[in-house]
Amino acid sequence: MIIKVMTLFPEMFLGPLDNSIVQRAKEKDIIDLEYINIRDFSDNKHKKVDDYPYGGGPGMIMAPQPIFDCYNYVINMLDLKESEKPRVIYLSPKGKVFNQQMAIEFSRERHIIMLCGHYEGVDQRVIDEIITDEVSIGDYVLTGGEIPAMVLIDSITRLLPGTLSQDQCYEDETFHSGLLEYPQYTRPASFRGLEVPDVLISGHHKKIDEWRRKESLKLTYKRRPELLKNIKLTDKERDFLNSIKGNNCQAID
Amino acid sequence: MIIKVMTLFPEMFLGPLDNSIVQRAKEKDIIDLEYINIRDFSDNKHKKVDDYPYGGGPGMIMAPQPIFDCYNYVINMLDLKESEKPRVIYLSPKGKVFNQQMAIEFSRERHIIMLCGHYEGVDQRVIDEIITDEVSIGDYVLTGGEIPAMVLIDSITRLLPGTLSQDQCYEDETFHSGLLEYPQYTRPASFRGLEVPDVLISGHHKKIDEWRRKESLKLTYKRRPELLKNIKLTDKERDFLNSIKGNNCQAID
Repeated sequence: MIIKVMTLFPEMFLGPLDNSIVQRAKEKDIIDLEYINIRDFSDNKHKKVDDYPYGGGPGMIMAPQPIFDCYNYVINMLDLKESEKPRVIYLSPKGKVFNQQMAIEFSRERHIIMLCGHYEGVDQRVIDEIITDEVSIGDYVLTGGEIPAMVLIDSITRLLPGTLSQDQCYEDETFHSGLLEYPQYTRPASFRGLEVPDVLISGHHKKIDEWRRKESLKLTYKRRPELLKNIKLTDKERDFLNSIKGNNCQAID
Repeated sequence: MIIKVMTLFPEMFLGPLDNSIVQRAKEKDIIDLEYINIRDFSDNKHKKVDDYPYGGGPGMIMAPQPIFDCYNYVINMLDLKESEKPRVIYLSPKGKVFNQQMAIEFSRERHIIMLCGHYEGVDQRVIDEIITDEVSIGDYVLTGGEIPAMVLIDSITRLLPGTLSQDQCYEDETFHSGLLEYPQYTRPASFRGLEVPDVLISGHHKKIDEWRRKESLKLTYKRRPELLKNIKLTDKERDFLNSIKGNNCQAID
Protein backbone atom coordinates (compact mmCIF):
# COMPACT_ATOMS: atom_id res chain seq x y z
CA MET A 1 0.00 0.00 0.00
CA ILE A 2 1.18 3.48 -0.87
CA ILE A 3 0.35 6.16 1.72
CA LYS A 4 1.08 9.83 1.00
CA VAL A 5 0.52 12.31 3.80
CA MET A 6 0.03 15.99 2.91
CA THR A 7 1.01 18.04 5.96
CA LEU A 8 2.51 21.34 7.10
CA PHE A 9 4.59 19.46 9.71
CA PRO A 10 6.28 16.36 8.20
CA GLU A 11 8.83 16.34 11.07
CA MET A 12 6.05 15.44 13.52
CA PHE A 13 5.92 11.93 12.07
CA LEU A 14 9.53 11.05 12.77
CA GLY A 15 9.34 9.39 16.19
CA PRO A 16 6.01 7.60 16.31
CA LEU A 17 6.04 5.73 13.06
CA ASP A 18 9.75 5.00 12.96
CA ASN A 19 9.47 2.97 16.16
CA SER A 20 6.68 0.52 15.72
CA ILE A 21 5.15 -2.10 13.53
CA VAL A 22 4.83 0.67 10.92
CA GLN A 23 8.62 0.74 10.62
CA ARG A 24 8.65 -3.05 10.22
CA ALA A 25 5.99 -2.80 7.50
CA LYS A 26 8.14 -0.22 5.69
CA GLU A 27 11.20 -2.46 5.89
CA LYS A 28 9.20 -5.38 4.49
CA ASP A 29 7.92 -3.18 1.63
CA ILE A 30 4.34 -3.70 2.79
CA ILE A 31 3.80 0.04 2.91
CA ASP A 32 5.46 2.91 1.11
CA LEU A 33 4.93 5.92 3.35
CA GLU A 34 5.83 9.47 2.41
CA TYR A 35 5.15 12.88 3.97
CA ILE A 36 4.80 15.83 1.59
CA ASN A 37 5.09 19.37 2.89
CA ILE A 38 2.16 21.45 1.64
CA ARG A 39 4.12 24.64 2.24
CA ASP A 40 6.57 23.71 -0.54
CA PHE A 41 3.71 24.21 -3.02
CA SER A 42 2.72 27.73 -1.95
CA ASP A 43 3.14 30.19 -4.83
CA ASN A 44 3.25 33.05 -2.34
CA LYS A 45 6.72 34.57 -2.02
CA HIS A 46 6.59 34.24 1.76
CA LYS A 47 5.34 30.63 1.44
CA LYS A 48 2.12 31.62 3.17
CA VAL A 49 -0.45 28.80 3.35
CA ASP A 50 -3.37 30.36 5.23
CA ASP A 51 -5.62 33.40 5.13
CA TYR A 52 -8.60 34.97 6.93
CA PRO A 53 -12.04 33.35 6.65
CA TYR A 54 -14.64 34.91 4.35
CA GLY A 55 -17.58 36.12 6.38
CA GLY A 56 -15.41 36.87 9.41
CA GLY A 57 -14.67 34.93 12.55
CA PRO A 58 -11.53 33.99 14.45
CA GLY A 59 -8.68 31.83 13.21
CA MET A 60 -7.10 31.22 9.84
CA ILE A 61 -8.12 28.89 7.01
CA MET A 62 -5.71 26.80 4.93
CA ALA A 63 -5.90 28.34 1.45
CA PRO A 64 -6.82 26.25 -1.62
CA GLN A 65 -3.81 26.88 -3.90
CA PRO A 66 -1.02 25.09 -1.97
CA ILE A 67 -3.25 22.09 -1.20
CA PHE A 68 -4.55 21.66 -4.75
CA ASP A 69 -1.04 21.90 -6.18
CA CYS A 70 0.34 19.49 -3.56
CA TYR A 71 -2.49 17.08 -4.37
CA ASN A 72 -1.79 17.26 -8.11
CA TYR A 73 1.87 16.52 -7.43
CA VAL A 74 0.94 13.48 -5.31
CA ILE A 75 -1.55 12.18 -7.87
CA ASN A 76 1.07 12.41 -10.61
CA MET A 77 3.47 10.34 -8.51
CA LEU A 78 1.02 7.48 -8.19
CA ASP A 79 0.73 4.75 -10.76
CA LEU A 80 -3.04 5.04 -11.12
CA LYS A 81 -5.05 2.98 -13.54
CA GLU A 82 -7.37 4.85 -15.87
CA SER A 83 -10.45 5.95 -13.91
CA GLU A 84 -8.86 4.85 -10.61
CA LYS A 85 -9.58 7.39 -7.88
CA PRO A 86 -7.52 6.93 -4.70
CA ARG A 87 -9.08 7.47 -1.28
CA VAL A 88 -8.24 10.95 -0.06
CA ILE A 89 -8.83 11.23 3.67
CA TYR A 90 -9.12 14.59 5.41
CA LEU A 91 -8.51 14.35 9.16
CA SER A 92 -11.04 16.74 10.65
CA PRO A 93 -13.17 17.13 13.79
CA LYS A 94 -16.20 17.36 11.46
CA GLY A 95 -15.55 13.91 10.03
CA LYS A 96 -17.24 10.57 10.42
CA VAL A 97 -15.88 8.94 13.59
CA PHE A 98 -13.14 6.42 12.81
CA ASN A 99 -13.63 2.83 13.92
CA GLN A 100 -12.19 -0.62 13.28
CA GLN A 101 -14.60 -1.28 10.42
CA MET A 102 -13.29 1.80 8.60
CA ALA A 103 -9.71 0.68 9.27
CA ILE A 104 -10.53 -2.66 7.60
CA GLU A 105 -12.13 -0.89 4.65
CA PHE A 106 -9.15 1.45 4.16
CA SER A 107 -6.70 -1.47 4.47
CA ARG A 108 -8.10 -2.87 1.20
CA GLU A 109 -7.03 0.16 -0.86
CA ARG A 110 -3.91 0.28 -3.06
CA HIS A 111 -3.33 3.98 -2.43
CA ILE A 112 -4.31 6.31 0.37
CA ILE A 113 -3.71 10.04 0.46
CA MET A 114 -4.18 11.88 3.76
CA LEU A 115 -4.59 15.61 4.31
CA CYS A 116 -3.78 16.99 7.76
CA GLY A 117 -5.67 20.15 8.66
CA HIS A 118 -4.51 22.97 10.92
CA TYR A 119 -5.85 26.28 12.18
CA GLU A 120 -9.60 26.61 11.60
CA GLY A 121 -9.52 23.95 8.87
CA VAL A 122 -9.18 24.00 5.10
CA ASP A 123 -11.08 25.90 2.42
CA GLN A 124 -14.30 24.00 1.66
CA ARG A 125 -13.48 23.88 -2.07
CA VAL A 126 -10.64 21.48 -1.22
CA ILE A 127 -13.07 19.21 0.61
CA ASP A 128 -15.65 19.36 -2.17
CA GLU A 129 -13.19 18.70 -4.99
CA ILE A 130 -10.57 16.23 -3.75
CA ILE A 131 -11.62 14.64 -0.44
CA THR A 132 -13.38 11.25 -0.53
CA ASP A 133 -13.53 10.68 3.26
CA GLU A 134 -13.65 13.23 6.08
CA VAL A 135 -12.59 11.35 9.23
CA SER A 136 -12.42 12.27 12.93
CA ILE A 137 -10.66 10.04 15.47
CA GLY A 138 -12.94 11.13 18.31
CA ASP A 139 -14.82 13.94 20.02
CA TYR A 140 -11.94 16.01 21.32
CA VAL A 141 -10.04 19.06 20.10
CA LEU A 142 -6.50 18.56 18.78
CA THR A 143 -3.98 20.98 17.31
CA GLY A 144 -3.93 19.43 13.85
CA GLY A 145 -4.50 16.34 11.77
CA GLU A 146 -1.01 14.88 12.24
CA ILE A 147 -1.62 12.76 15.37
CA PRO A 148 -4.96 11.54 13.90
CA ALA A 149 -3.10 10.57 10.70
CA MET A 150 -0.68 8.52 12.85
CA VAL A 151 -3.67 6.76 14.42
CA LEU A 152 -5.01 5.81 10.99
CA ILE A 153 -1.61 4.74 9.65
CA ASP A 154 -0.97 2.53 12.68
CA SER A 155 -4.40 0.89 12.67
CA ILE A 156 -4.46 0.36 8.88
CA THR A 157 -0.88 -0.97 8.67
CA ARG A 158 -1.59 -3.58 11.38
CA LEU A 159 -4.24 -5.06 9.11
CA LEU A 160 -2.05 -5.48 6.03
CA PRO A 161 -1.02 -9.09 5.36
CA GLY A 162 2.52 -9.79 6.58
CA THR A 163 2.80 -6.88 9.01
CA LEU A 164 2.04 -8.81 12.17
CA SER A 165 3.47 -12.19 13.06
CA GLN A 166 1.06 -15.11 13.36
CA ASP A 167 1.00 -14.71 17.11
CA GLN A 168 0.32 -10.99 17.12
CA CYS A 169 -2.64 -11.41 14.78
CA TYR A 170 -4.68 -12.55 17.74
CA GLU A 171 -3.89 -9.49 19.79
CA ASP A 172 -6.54 -7.14 21.05
CA GLU A 173 -9.61 -9.20 21.62
CA THR A 174 -11.52 -5.98 22.20
CA PHE A 175 -13.25 -5.00 18.94
CA HIS A 176 -12.93 -8.56 17.63
CA SER A 177 -15.31 -10.30 20.02
CA GLY A 178 -17.29 -7.06 20.30
CA LEU A 179 -16.81 -7.13 24.09
CA LEU A 180 -14.20 -5.42 26.23
CA GLU A 181 -11.43 -7.81 27.12
CA TYR A 182 -11.35 -9.81 30.37
CA PRO A 183 -8.62 -9.12 32.97
CA GLN A 184 -5.23 -10.60 32.12
CA TYR A 185 -2.53 -11.78 34.54
CA THR A 186 1.01 -13.01 34.20
CA ARG A 187 3.70 -14.34 36.55
CA PRO A 188 4.27 -14.28 39.45
CA ALA A 189 1.03 -15.77 40.81
CA SER A 190 1.63 -13.88 44.04
CA PHE A 191 3.19 -10.45 43.71
CA ARG A 192 3.74 -8.37 46.87
CA GLY A 193 0.61 -9.83 48.41
CA LEU A 194 -1.52 -9.49 45.26
CA GLU A 195 -2.82 -12.80 43.94
CA VAL A 196 -3.90 -14.06 40.53
CA PRO A 197 -7.48 -15.44 40.61
CA ASP A 198 -7.40 -19.17 41.42
CA VAL A 199 -9.40 -20.19 38.37
CA LEU A 200 -6.67 -19.00 35.99
CA ILE A 201 -4.11 -21.28 37.64
CA SER A 202 -6.53 -24.24 37.85
CA GLY A 203 -5.72 -25.62 34.41
CA HIS A 204 -9.47 -26.17 33.97
CA HIS A 205 -9.98 -24.72 30.50
CA LYS A 206 -13.75 -24.75 30.45
CA LYS A 207 -13.91 -22.87 33.75
CA ILE A 208 -11.27 -20.40 32.55
CA ASP A 209 -13.29 -19.70 29.39
CA GLU A 210 -16.47 -19.22 31.42
CA TRP A 211 -14.74 -16.90 33.88
CA ARG A 212 -13.25 -14.81 31.05
CA ARG A 213 -16.55 -14.54 29.21
CA LYS A 214 -18.35 -13.44 32.41
CA GLU A 215 -15.66 -10.86 33.19
CA SER A 216 -15.90 -9.51 29.62
CA LEU A 217 -19.67 -9.27 29.85
CA LYS A 218 -19.51 -7.59 33.27
CA LEU A 219 -16.91 -5.00 32.23
CA THR A 220 -18.71 -4.25 28.96
CA TYR A 221 -22.00 -3.81 30.80
CA LYS A 222 -20.44 -1.47 33.33
CA ARG A 223 -18.35 0.62 30.99
CA ARG A 224 -19.74 0.39 27.44
CA PRO A 225 -23.28 -1.02 27.71
CA GLU A 226 -24.10 0.15 24.16
CA LEU A 227 -21.72 -2.51 22.79
CA LEU A 228 -23.90 -5.31 24.19
CA LYS A 229 -26.64 -4.58 21.65
CA ASN A 230 -24.57 -6.25 18.92
CA ILE A 231 -23.70 -9.38 20.90
CA LYS A 232 -25.48 -12.74 20.64
CA LEU A 233 -26.00 -13.95 24.21
CA THR A 234 -26.93 -17.42 25.45
CA ASP A 235 -29.86 -17.70 27.89
CA LYS A 236 -27.36 -18.32 30.68
CA GLU A 237 -25.41 -15.18 29.79
CA ARG A 238 -28.59 -13.14 29.68
CA ASP A 239 -29.47 -14.40 33.19
CA PHE A 240 -25.99 -13.48 34.36
CA LEU A 241 -26.31 -9.93 33.01
CA ASN A 242 -29.75 -9.58 34.59
CA SER A 243 -28.31 -10.66 37.93
CA ILE A 244 -25.69 -7.90 37.65
CA LYS A 245 -28.35 -5.34 36.76
CA GLY A 246 -30.57 -6.49 39.62
CA ASN A 247 -27.60 -6.01 41.90
CA ASN A 248 -27.72 -2.26 41.17
CA CYS A 249 -24.21 -2.55 39.91
CA GLN A 250 -22.53 0.87 39.78
CA ALA A 251 -21.14 1.97 36.46
CA ILE A 252 -17.34 2.14 36.47
CA ASP A 253 -15.82 5.65 36.15
CA MET B 1 1.07 20.76 35.15
CA ILE B 2 3.47 17.88 35.55
CA ILE B 3 2.94 14.96 33.14
CA LYS B 4 4.95 11.77 33.50
CA VAL B 5 4.55 9.11 30.82
CA MET B 6 5.50 5.51 31.65
CA THR B 7 6.30 3.76 28.37
CA LEU B 8 8.44 1.08 26.75
CA PHE B 9 9.10 3.42 23.78
CA PRO B 10 10.04 6.94 24.97
CA GLU B 11 11.64 7.69 21.57
CA MET B 12 8.21 7.54 19.92
CA PHE B 13 7.31 10.86 21.51
CA LEU B 14 10.15 12.84 19.97
CA GLY B 15 8.62 14.22 16.78
CA PRO B 16 4.96 14.85 17.55
CA LEU B 17 5.18 16.73 20.78
CA ASP B 18 8.37 18.62 20.00
CA ASN B 19 6.70 20.33 17.06
CA SER B 20 3.46 21.77 18.25
CA ILE B 21 1.74 23.83 20.85
CA VAL B 22 3.00 21.23 23.36
CA GLN B 23 6.56 22.40 22.69
CA ARG B 24 5.47 26.00 23.25
CA ALA B 25 3.79 25.02 26.54
CA LYS B 26 7.03 23.35 27.63
CA GLU B 27 9.06 26.44 26.78
CA LYS B 28 6.64 28.63 28.75
CA ASP B 29 6.88 26.25 31.75
CA ILE B 30 3.16 25.54 31.52
CA ILE B 31 3.84 21.81 31.38
CA ASP B 32 6.71 19.70 32.60
CA LEU B 33 6.64 16.58 30.44
CA GLU B 34 8.84 13.55 30.98
CA TYR B 35 8.93 10.06 29.50
CA ILE B 36 10.12 7.25 31.75
CA ASN B 37 11.21 3.92 30.29
CA ILE B 38 9.50 1.08 32.12
CA ARG B 39 12.19 -1.34 30.91
CA ASP B 40 14.80 0.44 33.04
CA PHE B 41 12.96 -0.86 36.13
CA SER B 42 12.93 -4.54 35.20
CA ASP B 43 14.81 -6.61 37.77
CA ASN B 44 15.22 -9.38 35.22
CA LYS B 45 18.79 -9.72 34.01
CA HIS B 46 17.62 -9.60 30.36
CA LYS B 47 15.40 -6.58 31.16
CA LYS B 48 12.35 -8.62 30.22
CA VAL B 49 9.07 -6.79 30.81
CA ASP B 50 6.43 -9.27 29.64
CA ASP B 51 5.36 -12.86 30.15
CA TYR B 52 2.71 -15.37 29.08
CA PRO B 53 -0.89 -14.94 30.27
CA TYR B 54 -2.21 -17.16 33.07
CA GLY B 55 -5.02 -19.31 31.79
CA GLY B 56 -3.56 -19.46 28.28
CA GLY B 57 -4.24 -17.52 25.14
CA PRO B 58 -2.15 -15.70 22.57
CA GLY B 59 0.07 -12.69 23.15
CA MET B 60 2.15 -11.48 26.06
CA ILE B 61 1.18 -9.48 29.14
CA MET B 62 3.22 -6.65 30.66
CA ALA B 63 4.40 -8.02 34.02
CA PRO B 64 3.64 -6.22 37.29
CA GLN B 65 7.16 -5.75 38.74
CA PRO B 66 8.66 -3.24 36.25
CA ILE B 67 5.48 -1.15 36.18
CA PHE B 68 5.01 -1.02 39.97
CA ASP B 69 8.65 -0.06 40.46
CA CYS B 70 8.50 2.55 37.69
CA TYR B 71 5.34 3.96 39.28
CA ASN B 72 6.97 4.18 42.72
CA TYR B 73 9.91 6.01 41.19
CA VAL B 74 7.55 8.50 39.51
CA ILE B 75 5.49 9.05 42.65
CA ASN B 76 8.63 9.77 44.65
CA MET B 77 9.66 12.41 42.10
CA LEU B 78 6.42 14.33 42.53
CA ASP B 79 5.93 16.92 45.20
CA LEU B 80 2.66 15.44 46.47
CA LYS B 81 0.74 16.85 49.40
CA GLU B 82 -0.21 14.44 52.15
CA SER B 83 -3.14 12.32 50.97
CA GLU B 84 -2.85 13.74 47.43
CA LYS B 85 -3.37 11.00 44.84
CA PRO B 86 -2.44 11.96 41.27
CA ARG B 87 -4.53 10.85 38.31
CA VAL B 88 -2.95 7.76 36.79
CA ILE B 89 -4.33 7.14 33.30
CA TYR B 90 -3.94 3.80 31.55
CA LEU B 91 -4.39 4.07 27.78
CA SER B 92 -6.30 0.94 26.86
CA PRO B 93 -8.90 -0.24 24.33
CA LYS B 94 -11.01 -1.32 27.34
CA GLY B 95 -11.18 2.21 28.70
CA LYS B 96 -13.90 4.81 28.89
CA VAL B 97 -13.96 6.65 25.54
CA PHE B 98 -12.05 9.94 25.71
CA ASN B 99 -13.94 13.15 24.92
CA GLN B 100 -13.56 16.90 25.32
CA GLN B 101 -15.27 16.87 28.73
CA MET B 102 -12.64 14.45 30.03
CA ALA B 103 -9.89 16.64 28.54
CA ILE B 104 -11.29 19.60 30.50
CA GLU B 105 -11.46 17.53 33.69
CA PHE B 106 -7.86 16.29 33.32
CA SER B 107 -6.64 19.83 32.54
CA ARG B 108 -7.56 20.84 36.12
CA GLU B 109 -5.09 18.38 37.70
CA ARG B 110 -1.67 19.35 39.06
CA HIS B 111 -0.10 16.01 38.16
CA ILE B 112 -0.95 13.39 35.58
CA ILE B 113 0.77 10.04 35.19
CA MET B 114 0.13 8.02 32.04
CA LEU B 115 0.80 4.33 31.45
CA CYS B 116 1.14 3.14 27.85
CA GLY B 117 0.20 -0.49 27.31
CA HIS B 118 1.61 -2.88 24.72
CA TYR B 119 1.13 -6.50 23.70
CA GLU B 120 -2.05 -7.98 25.18
CA GLY B 121 -2.15 -5.32 27.90
CA VAL B 122 -0.91 -5.11 31.47
CA ASP B 123 -1.36 -7.40 34.45
CA GLN B 124 -4.73 -6.61 36.05
CA ARG B 125 -3.11 -6.08 39.47
CA VAL B 126 -1.47 -2.94 38.05
CA ILE B 127 -4.88 -1.64 36.98
CA ASP B 128 -6.51 -2.51 40.30
CA GLU B 129 -3.78 -0.96 42.45
CA ILE B 130 -2.48 2.15 40.71
CA ILE B 131 -4.76 3.19 37.83
CA THR B 132 -7.43 5.84 38.49
CA ASP B 133 -8.69 6.18 34.89
CA GLU B 134 -8.69 3.62 32.08
CA VAL B 135 -9.09 5.61 28.85
CA SER B 136 -9.56 4.65 25.18
CA ILE B 137 -9.29 7.21 22.38
CA GLY B 138 -11.74 5.33 20.16
CA ASP B 139 -12.98 1.99 18.87
CA TYR B 140 -10.00 0.91 16.79
CA VAL B 141 -6.98 -1.32 17.39
CA LEU B 142 -3.58 0.34 17.80
CA THR B 143 -0.13 -1.08 18.51
CA GLY B 144 0.27 0.54 21.90
CA GLY B 145 -0.73 3.37 24.19
CA GLU B 146 1.88 5.85 22.91
CA ILE B 147 -0.13 7.52 20.12
CA PRO B 148 -3.20 7.67 22.42
CA ALA B 149 -1.04 9.32 25.11
CA MET B 150 -0.01 11.95 22.51
CA VAL B 151 -3.69 12.59 21.80
CA LEU B 152 -4.37 13.21 25.50
CA ILE B 153 -1.28 15.35 26.00
CA ASP B 154 -2.14 17.55 23.00
CA SER B 155 -5.80 17.99 23.93
CA ILE B 156 -5.09 18.63 27.63
CA THR B 157 -2.20 21.04 26.99
CA ARG B 158 -4.35 23.18 24.65
CA LEU B 159 -6.68 23.82 27.58
CA LEU B 160 -4.06 25.05 30.04
CA PRO B 161 -4.11 28.82 30.59
CA GLY B 162 -1.40 30.56 28.56
CA THR B 163 -0.81 27.79 26.02
CA LEU B 164 -2.91 29.26 23.22
CA SER B 165 -2.91 32.89 22.16
CA GLN B 166 -6.12 34.85 22.60
CA ASP B 167 -6.98 34.29 18.97
CA GLN B 168 -6.40 30.56 18.98
CA CYS B 169 -8.67 30.10 21.99
CA TYR B 170 -11.63 30.42 19.68
CA GLU B 171 -10.44 27.70 17.34
CA ASP B 172 -12.39 24.56 16.68
CA GLU B 173 -16.03 25.51 16.94
CA THR B 174 -16.88 21.82 16.75
CA PHE B 175 -17.32 20.48 20.33
CA HIS B 176 -17.84 24.02 21.66
CA SER B 177 -21.16 24.80 19.98
CA GLY B 178 -22.00 21.08 20.08
CA LEU B 179 -22.53 21.14 16.29
CA LEU B 180 -20.14 20.26 13.49
CA GLU B 181 -18.58 23.37 12.02
CA TYR B 182 -19.97 25.14 8.94
CA PRO B 183 -17.88 25.26 5.72
CA GLN B 184 -15.06 27.78 5.77
CA TYR B 185 -13.57 29.64 2.79
CA THR B 186 -10.64 31.97 2.31
CA ARG B 187 -9.18 34.00 -0.58
CA PRO B 188 -9.37 33.99 -3.53
CA ALA B 189 -13.14 34.32 -3.98
CA SER B 190 -12.78 32.58 -7.33
CA PHE B 191 -10.17 29.85 -7.55
CA ARG B 192 -9.79 27.92 -10.82
CA GLY B 193 -13.50 28.24 -11.47
CA LEU B 194 -14.55 27.36 -7.93
CA GLU B 195 -16.49 30.14 -6.19
CA VAL B 196 -17.04 31.13 -2.57
CA PRO B 197 -20.77 31.29 -1.71
CA ASP B 198 -22.10 34.81 -2.36
CA VAL B 199 -23.52 35.26 1.14
CA LEU B 200 -20.03 35.10 2.70
CA ILE B 201 -18.84 38.02 0.58
CA SER B 202 -22.05 40.02 1.09
CA GLY B 203 -20.90 41.73 4.29
CA HIS B 204 -24.39 41.11 5.66
CA HIS B 205 -23.53 39.68 9.09
CA LYS B 206 -26.98 38.53 10.09
CA LYS B 207 -27.34 36.55 6.86
CA ILE B 208 -23.84 35.11 7.26
CA ASP B 209 -24.66 33.93 10.79
CA GLU B 210 -27.92 32.37 9.60
CA TRP B 211 -26.21 30.61 6.69
CA ARG B 212 -23.48 29.25 8.97
CA ARG B 213 -25.95 28.01 11.57
CA LYS B 214 -28.03 26.27 8.90
CA GLU B 215 -24.94 24.65 7.34
CA SER B 216 -23.84 23.45 10.80
CA LEU B 217 -27.26 22.01 11.52
CA LYS B 218 -27.43 20.32 8.11
CA LEU B 219 -23.97 18.75 8.36
CA THR B 220 -24.56 17.60 11.93
CA TYR B 221 -27.88 16.06 10.97
CA LYS B 222 -26.34 14.22 8.03
CA ARG B 223 -23.16 13.02 9.67
CA ARG B 224 -23.63 12.93 13.48
CA PRO B 225 -27.39 13.12 14.16
CA GLU B 226 -26.88 11.90 17.75
CA LEU B 227 -25.21 15.24 18.59
CA LEU B 228 -28.46 17.13 17.90
CA LYS B 229 -30.09 15.67 21.02
CA ASN B 230 -28.06 18.04 23.20
CA ILE B 231 -28.75 21.19 21.18
CA LYS B 232 -31.39 23.81 22.01
CA LEU B 233 -33.15 24.64 18.75
CA THR B 234 -35.41 27.57 17.92
CA ASP B 235 -38.78 26.82 16.31
CA LYS B 236 -37.39 28.07 13.01
CA GLU B 237 -34.39 25.77 13.25
CA ARG B 238 -36.63 22.82 14.07
CA ASP B 239 -38.71 23.59 10.95
CA PHE B 240 -35.51 23.79 8.90
CA LEU B 241 -34.34 20.38 10.15
CA ASN B 242 -37.76 18.88 9.47
CA SER B 243 -37.62 20.22 5.91
CA ILE B 244 -34.28 18.44 5.42
CA LYS B 245 -35.66 15.21 6.86
CA GLY B 246 -38.76 15.47 4.69
CA ASN B 247 -36.45 15.88 1.74
CA ASN B 248 -35.16 12.37 2.33
CA CYS B 249 -31.72 13.79 2.68
CA GLN B 250 -29.07 11.11 2.18
CA ALA B 251 -26.60 10.59 4.98
CA ILE B 252 -23.09 11.67 4.00
CA ASP B 253 -20.48 8.87 3.75
